[in-house]
Amino acid sequence: MIKNYTTYFQVFGLSMLMFVLVGQTQVQAQKKLSKDEKVIRKIFDLSLTDQKAYEWLDYLCNKIGGRLSGSPQAAAAVEFTRQVMDTLGVDRVFLQEVMVPHWVRGDKEIGKIVESKKIGSQEVRVCALGNSIGTGPNGLAAKVIEVKTFEELRSLGVDKVKGKIVFYNRPFDNTKIETFRSYGGAVNQRSAGASEAAKLGAVGVVVRSMTGRIDDNPHTGNMRYQLNVRKIPAVAISTKGAELLSRLLKNDDQLKFYFRTTCKKLKDKKSYNVVGEIKGSQYPDEIIVVGGYLDSWDTGDGAHDDGSGAVQSMDVLRLIKAAGIKPKRTIRAVMFMNEENGLRGGRKYAELAAQKKEKHIAALESDSGGFSPRSIGVNDDFGKFAKVKKWDKWFAPYGVKIIRGGGGADIGPLRTQNVTIMGLRPDSQRYFDYHHTEIDTFDKVHPRELQMGAATMASIIYLLSEYGL
Amino acid sequence: MIKNYTTYFQVFGLSMLMFVLVGQTQVQAQKKLSKDEKVIRKIFDLSLTDQKAYEWLDYLCNKIGGRLSGSPQAAAAVEFTRQVMDTLGVDRVFLQEVMVPHWVRGDKEIGKIVESKKIGSQEVRVCALGNSIGTGPNGLAAKVIEVKTFEELRSLGVDKVKGKIVFYNRPFDNTKIETFRSYGGAVNQRSAGASEAAKLGAVGVVVRSMTGRIDDNPHTGNMRYQLNVRKIPAVAISTKGAELLSRLLKNDDQLKFYFRTTCKKLKDKKSYNVVGEIKGSQYPDEIIVVGGYLDSWDTGDGAHDDGSGAVQSMDVLRLIKAAGIKPKRTIRAVMFMNEENGLRGGRKYAELAAQKKEKHIAALESDSGGFSPRSIGVNDDFGKFAKVKKWDKWFAPYGVKIIRGGGGADIGPLRTQNVTIMGLRPDSQRYFDYHHTEIDTFDKVHPRELQMGAATMASIIYLLSEYGL
Repeated sequence: MIKNYTTYFQVFGLSMLMFVLVGQTQVQAQKKLSKDEKVIRKIFDLSLTDQKAYEWLDYLCNKIGGRLSGSPQAAAAVEFTRQVMDTLGVDRVFLQEVMVPHWVRGDKEIGKIVESKKIGSQEVRVCALGNSIGTGPNGLAAKVIEVKTFEELRSLGVDKVKGKIVFYNRPFDNTKIETFRSYGGAVNQRSAGASEAAKLGAVGVVVRSMTGRIDDNPHTGNMRYQLNVRKIPAVAISTKGAELLSRLLKNDDQLKFYFRTTCKKLKDKKSYNVVGEIKGSQYPDEIIVVGGYLDSWDTGDGAHDDGSGAVQSMDVLRLIKAAGIKPKRTIRAVMFMNEENGLRGGRKYAELAAQKKEKHIAALESDSGGFSPRSIGVNDDFGKFAKVKKWDKWFAPYGVKIIRGGGGADIGPLRTQNVTIMGLRPDSQRYFDYHHTEIDTFDKVHPRELQMGAATMASIIYLLSEYGL
Repeated sequence: MIKNYTTYFQVFGLSMLMFVLVGQTQVQAQKKLSKDEKVIRKIFDLSLTDQKAYEWLDYLCNKIGGRLSGSPQAAAAVEFTRQVMDTLGVDRVFLQEVMVPHWVRGDKEIGKIVESKKIGSQEVRVCALGNSIGTGPNGLAAKVIEVKTFEELRSLGVDKVKGKIVFYNRPFDNTKIETFRSYGGAVNQRSAGASEAAKLGAVGVVVRSMTGRIDDNPHTGNMRYQLNVRKIPAVAISTKGAELLSRLLKNDDQLKFYFRTTCKKLKDKKSYNVVGEIKGSQYPDEIIVVGGYLDSWDTGDGAHDDGSGAVQSMDVLRLIKAAGIKPKRTIRAVMFMNEENGLRGGRKYAELAAQKKEKHIAALESDSGGFSPRSIGVNDDFGKFAKVKKWDKWFAPYGVKIIRGGGGADIGPLRTQNVTIMGLRPDSQRYFDYHHTEIDTFDKVHPRELQMGAATMASIIYLLSEYGL
C-alpha cells in the first residue's frame, strides 16, 4: 500500500498523500499496542463509525429545540435522554428532582435607534438578557451614554448617567488565542452591567453581544440583579448594531435608543437531572461523573451549548458498553438541568452526593462546544494532576493533550467534596459565533468533531475507572 | 481582574471562566518574553485583528470564484494576487510563465439509474472527473459491475467486466483520525480506476465520491489515463447516490447506469505563477518559499482548496512587513498555478530555480484547508528536522506543534535541490466535506482559523529567515 502511494505521489504530486505517509501516526500504528491503547483505539473506532451522539443531538436540536429551564422543551429533553439511556443496558437510570427558575422571553424584542435630527428610526437586533425584567408593553426610550468599563461609568457619575440608557460597548479582545479568554474579559458587562448602571440612576442597559465577530445575531445570556438595587431592563445588541449605535452617537449624543421587552420571571418549576449509571465491578463505591447539561437558551437549539456535552456524556456510557469494558469503578453520566440560568441541577447533584455520603473521585464536564477536542483540562486542587498527566501518551494519536486547569459549572459544586474536576477543551475558534444565539443549531456541529470529543471523554473515563485516582 | 472573575465564578458557576483562569497560557503570559516570542506574539496579534487573508479570500471566492487552469477566472486570480502583492511594499513582484492543461467541463452532467423492471429512472448527482473524456451528447448507458478494489476487479476478469460500467465503491475508512489518510486509502479508484477498468473492456467508470460523509455532493478531482489503454469516460457519484446504486444493484444486477458528460481537453494555455519577494538583508541568496496555489476546481469557489493557502501566503509577506521584521534571508510568497490538474506551476518554479542556480533552503506550503492549525510538518530528508523542532516551544501558546513529515505538491519538485520542505497541517475533520465540490465556498472558512494559520506560517518563516537551516 505504502509503495503504491509513493509511486502515486511521484506521478500526481498530491501533497496530502505525502504527509499521510510520513506522519508520526504511521510509525505509531506499526508498534504493538498495549491493552489500554487497544481499548482506546476501539472506543475511537466505535465512536467515529456509529456516530450515536450525533444522531441523538439531531433529535435534541431538531425534534425538541431550545430548552430553557422550566419550558416544555426542557421537560421533553429530560424524557428523551432518560429513554435513550434506558436503551443502553446500563445498571440504573434515575432522575433527581430539582426546582428551577422559570424565566420567559415573551414577545420578540424590538430595538431602535432614534436620531435627534431625523424623522423615523433604524431597527437594530436586540434580545433580552436572561433574568432581566421587561420594559412593559410600551417599551423604553431614553438618551444613551456609551461606556467600555465600570470604572468609566463610575467616573461619569450620577449627573451624566441618570435617566439614560447605558450602552456597554467593550469588544472581545481578538488577540486572545482561546476565545473563552476574550469572553472572560467582556462578560461582566452582561452579567453585572444593569445593577452597576442602576446605582447611578440609569433606566436601562444595552450590552454589546459577547462575540468577536461583527454580525447581526444578538447573544442572550444570564444577568443578575444586585440586592437592594433597582432593577432595570437589559438587552443584548448585535455587534453590528453596537458598531452602528457607537458611530451614530459620536455625531449625535442626543439620539435616543428605544427597546421593548416583555420577558418576566414566573414561579419556579419542578425539573430533573437525569442520571445513567454503570456499577463498578470492583470498587462500586468510587464514583466517576461525566456530564453535560440539558437546558439551553431559547434563542437557538442549544446544539454546541450544551446539547453536544449532553449527548457526548450519554455516548460515554454506550461506548464503554460497546467496547466490552467492565469498569472497576462506578460511572455516571449526568444530564444536569439549569446550568444557564441558575445552576440548580449542579448544586442539587452535589447536595445529594453529600447527603448520601457518596465518594466521588473525579468529574468531567463537556461544556465548550462539540468541536475537535484539543485537550482535557484537569484541576490540581487535590494533587491528582500528575497521575492523570501520565496518561497523556495514550491520547497523542488523537491530537489530545492533558493539561492543567479545567472543570465545568455543573461539577464545580463537587469540589468541596475533594473531587478532582476536569473539562473537555475543544478548539474554541468558532464557539462564540453561535453561543446563546439563534444560529446555535445542529448544522453547526460536525459529526466527526463531536464523536472525537465523545471518544476522548470515554477514554479518560475508562482510565479513571480502571486505575482510580 | 482575576479576583473579580473568581468571585464571579463563585456566583455564576461559569465553567468557561474557570478554565480561562487556571489554564496554562495564563502562567506563560506572566513571564518575560524573549525577542522571538515577542515577534511571534506580534504576528499573531496583527493576523487576528487585521484579518487581511480573510478579506482577500472573500474577493478570490466571491468576486472571482472557481479557477480551473486555463479559465478566465484563473487569469483573474493571477492579476488579483499580483495587484495585492503590489500594495504590500515588498521588493519585487513578478510572474513566471507556464503552459497549463486546459480541460473544460462542458454541460452540467446527468446521471441516472435505470432499473430493469421499472419504467423510468432515478436521477443521481454525478460530475465528470478532471481530465476525463466526455460521453458525447447522447451519453452512455450500460450494465453496472460494483467493485471495491482493483484486485476484486481483476479477479472478475474480462467476461464479467466487458461492455459494462465499473462502479468503484470503496468508502473512506472513517476510523482514521487524519482524514487525509482516509483519502489516501480511497483515491486510487478516482485517479487510476478508468484505465484499470478499460483494460478489462469496461465502457465507463462511476466512482464513489472522496468523502467520509453521506451526502449529495459529487466530488470531482483529477484522473489519469495510462498510455496505450483505451480512454473511457469517468464520473464521480455523490456518496448518497453510491449508497443507492449499491443497494439497488443487490436486487437488480441487470439495472443500467446512464451518464452524460461533454467535458474535453483543449489546447494548453499560457498562464503564470505569481511571486512576491522580500529581499534578505544579510543573506539575500538564501531563499525561503511560502506558497499555496491559485487554481482550483470549477465546481465550487476553491475556498479551502486552496484559496486559503494562497491568501495565507500573501499574508505572510504582509505580516512580516507589518511586524517590522527585516528578514535576514529572502522570503518569497509563491502563488503556484495548476496544482489540481497538472502541477505545471510547481515544476516550472523548480526548473527555473535550478536554471538560475538559486539556493532555496526551505519551502512551506499550505494546502490542507484554512482550518485551525494543529502542526507544521517538516520533512527530514536533509537532516534539518531537529533544528526546526527546537522552535516547538514558541508555538505552544498557539496550540501548534512541529512534527515530522509534510510538504506540499507544488514544492515537492524542489526536493531534488536539497530543499527542506514543510506543510501547514490544520485540523482535518471537515476538509473532505468540501474538497472539490460546489460547497467549497467562502462561508466554510472561519476568519480566526484562517488567520491562525497565516500567523503560524509567518512565524515559522520568520524563524527560518532569522536563523537559516
